[in-house]
Amino acid sequence: MKEKNFFFKRRKNVYLRDILKKINFENKIFSKNILINDIQNLDVAKKNDLSFFHSSKYINLLKKTKSNFIITTPTLSSIIPKSKTKIVVKNVLVSVAKITEFFYPSSLNDQFEKNYVIGTNKKNYKSVNFGSNVLLGNNVKIGKNSSIGHNTIIESNVVIGNNCHIGSNVIIKKTLVGNNVSILDGAIIGKKGFGFFPSRNKNIKYPHIGMVIIRDNVEIGCNNTIDRGSLSNTVIGKNSFLDNQVHIAHNVQIGKNCIITGQVGFAGSSRIGNNVMIGGQAGISGHLKVGDNVKIGGGSGVIKNIPDNAKVMGYPAKDIKKFILENK
Amino acid sequence: MKEKNFFFKRRKNVYLRDILKKINFENKIFSKNILINDIQNLDVAKKNDLSFFHSSKYINLLKKTKSNFIITTPTLSSIIPKSKTKIVVKNVLVSVAKITEFFYPSSLNDQFEKNYVIGTNKKNYKSVNFGSNVLLGNNVKIGKNSSIGHNTIIESNVVIGNNCHIGSNVIIKKTLVGNNVSILDGAIIGKKGFGFFPSRNKNIKYPHIGMVIIRDNVEIGCNNTIDRGSLSNTVIGKNSFLDNQVHIAHNVQIGKNCIITGQVGFAGSSRIGNNVMIGGQAGISGHLKVGDNVKIGGGSGVIKNIPDNAKVMGYPAKDIKKFILENK
Amino acid sequence: MKEKNFFFKRRKNVYLRDILKKINFENKIFSKNILINDIQNLDVAKKNDLSFFHSSKYINLLKKTKSNFIITTPTLSSIIPKSKTKIVVKNVLVSVAKITEFFYPSSLNDQFEKNYVIGTNKKNYKSVNFGSNVLLGNNVKIGKNSSIGHNTIIESNVVIGNNCHIGSNVIIKKTLVGNNVSILDGAIIGKKGFGFFPSRNKNIKYPHIGMVIIRDNVEIGCNNTIDRGSLSNTVIGKNSFLDNQVHIAHNVQIGKNCIITGQVGFAGSSRIGNNVMIGGQAGISGHLKVGDNVKIGGGSGVIKNIPDNAKVMGYPAKDIKKFILENK
Repeated sequence: MKEKNFFFKRRKNVYLRDILKKINFENKIFSKNILINDIQNLDVAKKNDLSFFHSSKYINLLKKTKSNFIITTPTLSSIIPKSKTKIVVKNVLVSVAKITEFFYPSSLNDQFEKNYVIGTNKKNYKSVNFGSNVLLGNNVKIGKNSSIGHNTIIESNVVIGNNCHIGSNVIIKKTLVGNNVSILDGAIIGKKGFGFFPSRNKNIKYPHIGMVIIRDNVEIGCNNTIDRGSLSNTVIGKNSFLDNQVHIAHNVQIGKNCIITGQVGFAGSSRIGNNVMIGGQAGISGHLKVGDNVKIGGGSGVIKNIPDNAKVMGYPAKDIKKFILENK
Repeated sequence: MKEKNFFFKRRKNVYLRDILKKINFENKIFSKNILINDIQNLDVAKKNDLSFFHSSKYINLLKKTKSNFIITTPTLSSIIPKSKTKIVVKNVLVSVAKITEFFYPSSLNDQFEKNYVIGTNKKNYKSVNFGSNVLLGNNVKIGKNSSIGHNTIIESNVVIGNNCHIGSNVIIKKTLVGNNVSILDGAIIGKKGFGFFPSRNKNIKYPHIGMVIIRDNVEIGCNNTIDRGSLSNTVIGKNSFLDNQVHIAHNVQIGKNCIITGQVGFAGSSRIGNNVMIGGQAGISGHLKVGDNVKIGGGSGVIKNIPDNAKVMGYPAKDIKKFILENK
Repeated sequence: MKEKNFFFKRRKNVYLRDILKKINFENKIFSKNILINDIQNLDVAKKNDLSFFHSSKYINLLKKTKSNFIITTPTLSSIIPKSKTKIVVKNVLVSVAKITEFFYPSSLNDQFEKNYVIGTNKKNYKSVNFGSNVLLGNNVKIGKNSSIGHNTIIESNVVIGNNCHIGSNVIIKKTLVGNNVSILDGAIIGKKGFGFFPSRNKNIKYPHIGMVIIRDNVEIGCNNTIDRGSLSNTVIGKNSFLDNQVHIAHNVQIGKNCIITGQVGFAGSSRIGNNVMIGGQAGISGHLKVGDNVKIGGGSGVIKNIPDNAKVMGYPAKDIKKFILENK
């Protein structure tokens, strides 16, 4: 299932030479009169997309990538297959940020949207129940029998399915919402992730061009914050329920039928399996993989991968039997 | 002190046979032509109310209940006194959910309220100070010298006492508020609890017909979330103060004079005594009893009952002297 | 850098005798016909300001203070230099609260502000981009090329610099904001701190007359809560970035270039150095000093001072090498 992202306008007719100029790359070995379509992660890039390889962790993705243009570091460059065009830079992610911004010129603008409609055009939203003071951007799609609460703001191009109930004081942007979804009061969904390059005096912001995808039958609790992805998407799987004050950082993917209780937090890019239960205030570090049917006790701090069917608890999280034994 | 709940309309003239039909109960042993008044917990049910017994934990309540009609499991049914009518089912809570929804047909609707008044009728709220864009439901009562901040939403039948100060961007529903109460900006009070029956592909929602009761002199911090009870109420006791970003799940009861600091979370149904102090980010698991005058250190994870006057800290929380000794 | 606080009107022509009357102080040893200018902490008080000394922790500040009028306890009074006028009371902080309220009569009123302007006067805010339903108090200053999102409330006398982007549903009061600052959706900034004197049946509120100061290039995440100082200010240093759902209590001072990730919480009055990184859900107890270049792992509970350059993790937080070793 690969949803299309209509939220960021991509620059067309971009030549490799334009890209190399943006990152001050001086190298005359290879032709630069080639049209590049987009910048993408290794796993989804097509042959005319630029991609990047900045850690040996991703070697399996490198082996399978269709991309013919890979940005990498001097150290890693020897691993890139000879069939690919290598673009060797000092800091891969800074280059990727610059190129992303070049492809998506509006991607660093995370201000509130100024093109909105106060009230609603009855023709387009026949069976939708609107509260007072709702603001809708352009081209927002809302399915049948859905409701949008008071003071809620839905920015342009957001898609909301049928039988969805959006609460009051909710903010939604860069997001696709399935059917039968409830998003409760005060939730903020689709904000850029907390990703930037630290730099003394003035940090360098990173463009986030991913979306949030919320699948069917999901419930999102009050005052939740769910950030959109940087290049890939943040995903909440079918029939997963999130309690109040949950925080989900960029690129996190949560599987189906998960139960995430109050004040749980996820750092960026972790992948959570199906049927996972997480107790209150637990925290999941970044870039981890949590398997299917995992149970994580309340207050746990998960700092490494967890295999399928495990029950863990503690900080750092360990097998729950061990935790109980040690804390008798 | 037993406050009346005006928030959910109860179906009248319900016969036992109607109820049994709802849960597909086939049993011809006992008469079904009996009027049943309500569904209630064992401790508050009257003789014509239906009640339920699903765990031997509640045996003391069973012994004292006035209810003559008890839903229970095959295993537990032998404990029910012979004077009572037993309704033996596979899953007690699923049956209770169905019957609750039957008695309270609107109880599963947790959408924003559509019947509101923009602005305010000066006659009814003579000495109340309203901000801009306040939305009030029908029959909201607000006492003297109270104030309601900008963009705040107060749904139908909510009662707010004298000298109360409600901040801006606050949402209050299904709630009774005493006198001299402050509810600070962004708090969301009275939402249904995070209770449902997990089910692959589509969880089954549970009706929450309890209220939130906030007693005199309480302060509720910014961005707090306080969920209403399922059958019983969520209660914040007199003169208890809650800091910002506190989460209180359904049915939690907090005593008098408690001090709950920032980002503390309570899972469902715990009972906290009087004069309890809880440090920042501590978490209290569900269905626990915390005694009077207890002190819980910041960041603690409380996973078992705590007796009166104890001082605990750690995850899991233990005697604070032990915690300090172990962490020297 | 000592910014002026225009948020609280100070009573003029206050004599020492008026102050002593407020705290029922009966002592005829020293002259009371002296004009007192203000009440201040030891380190910033001038010679005609009243100050207070309630813990031997502050002895170094006492030695250097310019204040000639010191409130203190019987036990500590012998430490006060003879050149100063001592005012010996049972409870120093209760007296300070009463005197603060006397100097700043509106300081205990933390209700929403009633004097606001719906919409905006185009003349004063030529290059500012306003969303819908923005409320501004009197004398709000907003610099060039800044934007203020939908439903956002900015109370009187708040100063916002150039190129600032304030999101939607934000509330800002008693706050000075530098240039190039982003404050994301739902943040609540400048509320009084969670400080009061616990008292059975009705706690005694404490006046908070400090501000929040947010320096240049800062980013404040969604649904953050940042409380203003009691006497001193809450400060977020230049180029520090805060993720979503962070809570910062009164008087906390955060240095430059800090990175504070999701759901981190700070109890009151802690001082954080420059270039500090704090992982998700970590908690910092009150009145601590965290040095420069410190790294604090996610989920940690910091309960003592941390020296410069340390890397810590755990609850309680300890050297990260020790933490990893102990948790192998």
